[in-house]
Amino acid sequence: MSEVAKASPTAPRKLKDITQWDFETDVAIVGFGGAGACAAIEAADAGSDVMIFEVASESGGSTKLSSAEIYMGGNGGTPPQQASGFNDESEDMIQYLLMAGGPQADEKKVRAYVEGSLDHYHWITGLGVPYKMSFHEKRDVMCLTDDCLLYTGSEKAWPFVEKAKPCPRGHNIEVEGDNGGPLLVGILTDQVEKRDKIDVHYETRVVTLIADENNDVHGLVIRQNMKEYNVKARKGVILCAGGFVMNDEMLQKYAPQLLRATYKVGNPGDMGTGIMMGMGVGAAAINMNEGFVSLPFYPPAETTYGILVNSAGQRFINEDCYHGRVGFHLMQQLGDRVYMIFTATDDWKPPSFLFADIAGTGETIKELEEELNLPEGTLQHTMAYYNKNAADGKDPQFHKSAEYLAPLEPPYAALDCTPGRGAFFPYFTLGGLDTLPSGEVLTPEGKPIKGLYAAGRTTAGIPRTGAGYSSGMSVGDATFFGRQAGIQVAKQNAR
Amino acid sequence: MSEVAKASPTAPRKLKDITQWDFETDVAIVGFGGAGACAAIEAADAGSDVMIFEVASESGGSTKLSSAEIYMGGNGGTPPQQASGFNDESEDMIQYLLMAGGPQADEKKVRAYVEGSLDHYHWITGLGVPYKMSFHEKRDVMCLTDDCLLYTGSEKAWPFVEKAKPCPRGHNIEVEGDNGGPLLVGILTDQVEKRDKIDVHYETRVVTLIADENNDVHGLVIRQNMKEYNVKARKGVILCAGGFVMNDEMLQKYAPQLLRATYKVGNPGDMGTGIMMGMGVGAAAINMNEGFVSLPFYPPAETTYGILVNSAGQRFINEDCYHGRVGFHLMQQLGDRVYMIFTATDDWKPPSFLFADIAGTGETIKELEEELNLPEGTLQHTMAYYNKNAADGKDPQFHKSAEYLAPLEPPYAALDCTPGRGAFFPYFTLGGLDTLPSGEVLTPEGKPIKGLYAAGRTTAGIPRTGAGYSSGMSVGDATFFGRQAGIQVAKQNAR
Repeated sequence: MSEVAKASPTAPRKLKDITQWDFETDVAIVGFGGAGACAAIEAADAGSDVMIFEVASESGGSTKLSSAEIYMGGNGGTPPQQASGFNDESEDMIQYLLMAGGPQADEKKVRAYVEGSLDHYHWITGLGVPYKMSFHEKRDVMCLTDDCLLYTGSEKAWPFVEKAKPCPRGHNIEVEGDNGGPLLVGILTDQVEKRDKIDVHYETRVVTLIADENNDVHGLVIRQNMKEYNVKARKGVILCAGGFVMNDEMLQKYAPQLLRATYKVGNPGDMGTGIMMGMGVGAAAINMNEGFVSLPFYPPAETTYGILVNSAGQRFINEDCYHGRVGFHLMQQLGDRVYMIFTATDDWKPPSFLFADIAGTGETIKELEEELNLPEGTLQHTMAYYNKNAADGKDPQFHKSAEYLAPLEPPYAALDCTPGRGAFFPYFTLGGLDTLPSGEVLTPEGKPIKGLYAAGRTTAGIPRTGAGYSSGMSVGDATFFGRQAGIQVAKQNAR
Repeated sequence: MSEVAKASPTAPRKLKDITQWDFETDVAIVGFGGAGACAAIEAADAGSDVMIFEVASESGGSTKLSSAEIYMGGNGGTPPQQASGFNDESEDMIQYLLMAGGPQADEKKVRAYVEGSLDHYHWITGLGVPYKMSFHEKRDVMCLTDDCLLYTGSEKAWPFVEKAKPCPRGHNIEVEGDNGGPLLVGILTDQVEKRDKIDVHYETRVVTLIADENNDVHGLVIRQNMKEYNVKARKGVILCAGGFVMNDEMLQKYAPQLLRATYKVGNPGDMGTGIMMGMGVGAAAINMNEGFVSLPFYPPAETTYGILVNSAGQRFINEDCYHGRVGFHLMQQLGDRVYMIFTATDDWKPPSFLFADIAGTGETIKELEEELNLPEGTLQHTMAYYNKNAADGKDPQFHKSAEYLAPLEPPYAALDCTPGRGAFFPYFTLGGLDTLPSGEVLTPEGKPIKGLYAAGRTTAGIPRTGAGYSSGMSVGDATFFGRQAGIQVAKQNAR
């Protein structure tokens, strides 16, 4: 074996060099987060023996760190949607997700996801995940009560609202505080552990895949306690090893613009090794430049009354869209500064999650403009134009909804939302292996690689760009397509 | 062999399955464009036997279709630069190219390119490529006289001009009209043909690489006249097979936003097969989402006095920057319309290359604004603000240089520069295999793949984003790094 092969997840171990199998199973799963758990449950329930290999000492991955909202709907509405008076049509959800994915949206995945969404709700709740039949109406980054439904994206905002009837589709688990992730993972872990057909190996690093000369995948090499073992996967391997936000070298190579953001959202295992292993047997990695970058300027929802301006003193976005969409367009602004401007009466406080410094204040906009050193007259015009139209409930330039339109009044304050100057910009990756809705991993020419499946952020899934992200898409995508991969691999003949 | 392997450039033929070599050479080069030609010449001059395989019936690739400007400078200046009074310092050229590459700039390549640039000038002219010792001062997309030097990028424009002393670095070959491509290719082809060590096979399709079990590359499979032959490359294979602009499936997968542009710049061979063959032996393809998209609104240079506005009636770019940079930022605008507005006196004619319809005219800006259906007051303000500052030679928002600042005056006309509504948007791809400056092709982990080299648009080279493109970067990159690959592979031991 060459030096390259020895050191690298991208170089599979050769099947012909394997002299013994230390473990055998039908389905080998790399990673015990949301995707891996759901894949394991489905594969086991279809009668397959499953092994999960998790590098950490416990389950959960990035799902556990998240709020674990799941983006669900369509089909006339899930029970919480119907109970709250929302009849969510599938075509509206499909249209929203296609717009949200941008030109790289995967229509096959979108349609499969929507068509199976109500079933997914019943499957998840059938495992014991509780949802309250309630609606959290307030605009929020997450729901800190135990209520269920909330708007988690740009459904009500331009341009989405013009093309797809809005509906809240973020399903928040019935638990107080930001504790959805641990609760969901706890339930999924219990479900895994009670299945005899599933065997979990913690603190186990997957070193590389085992493939034959045609890149058909037959198993993987694991390392436990400083020793390597060969695992035969009679039906297939499912890569559920997360994204690559923790791997700065990969970020620099594939998505360098994300490095302007400040806070990596993920777990230490998000090193891209699943993606690299896939590439090592000829899989296509796609959408690798895309990521989620957020400027979480709400809650409180009232900050949405503020306006964002760039260094030309211009607005550039409807501030009522999702914080990730704001982040996406903020990062595209020419010039080196972005400010968010508010009416700052005595009771005004900067939004708690933003950590943005106050860059300037003023009794008049002219004073603020000078303090911010914006080109003379620009902010004055922007504000006059905005205020005049906001008084009429209109935003002819950017189409912020009337709900958040009101003239800004003195005294004013501006928060510095320039990347790199203090404001909080969480980010994660949205690129990964190209897969079919069934989880089959594809070559650059679109041919499935035999024996290899993937789900979750190791793949390019439903969320394809920060410009169209909604909270709940990642855990939704991971759990839904994790299930599909488990179902698909269980159907294979054992080799 | 599996079905996948049979049909696919991404699946290499296995070395152990090769029962005979039909051809043997030291260096096998895929593609006889600018990169392939220069690689062949250098490898042959270093004593290696070379075979070039070209799918077309003649040489040239996309280099022949181009103006064949070469971006050169630094080192105190090339002879045409010095003769025209420009002492181009290497640090300025390096700084410009690093800014031009954006966060994904490859500093090692940039430094190698600049350090070797004067030598490259002498090498190219030594082959017989003629340059006049002259400067074409006018802003142009290309030089239609036989003059040499011109500004071909955003060197004099904000923000580049603030960080790097501008210098014209586009070197136009001494030939009248847009005939640089055929002339350069003619000279390179003569140089190739006069070397006994180089054997050219036209109308020959490279089907796939031949690799051993560690993905070391040993040769390639070619098809001539409906028959396949195995070619042994004792020292290595160099992929110089162009980009993927002609491959809509690859564009949809890797760079779907480019499909909003209208005109593919390239030759029919730009199908991405070089990139796919590289991926098939484990190479990393990077920068795959990036492309060049231009709005060629000049010549005449006077159109630069016009202003571009988006559907919010705002300007968004300094119109004196390069047409590719304008195209890049234009494609990022929210909303569905972009206009360019001019003073349209009787002698005004729309720029000839733009094919943009007149979307509106007006004796006043208010009239034009209404005709364009822009939000009331927006264009009026934009124009008033622009004109007031332009009269003082200032552009405080976007920093267009005073050279192109003058108040726009009635009557006005607006050209529709919205993508998809008639205006000409040429485009090509800027993603490809990750390589060292030596042309060695890298895995996702940055390890060289033995026996595999690449150059030109099959690689991610000096130009990394349309936002920083300058004409002459592609032919410069192809010829310069084609040479480096030829030199590097010639040094290898024959296997």
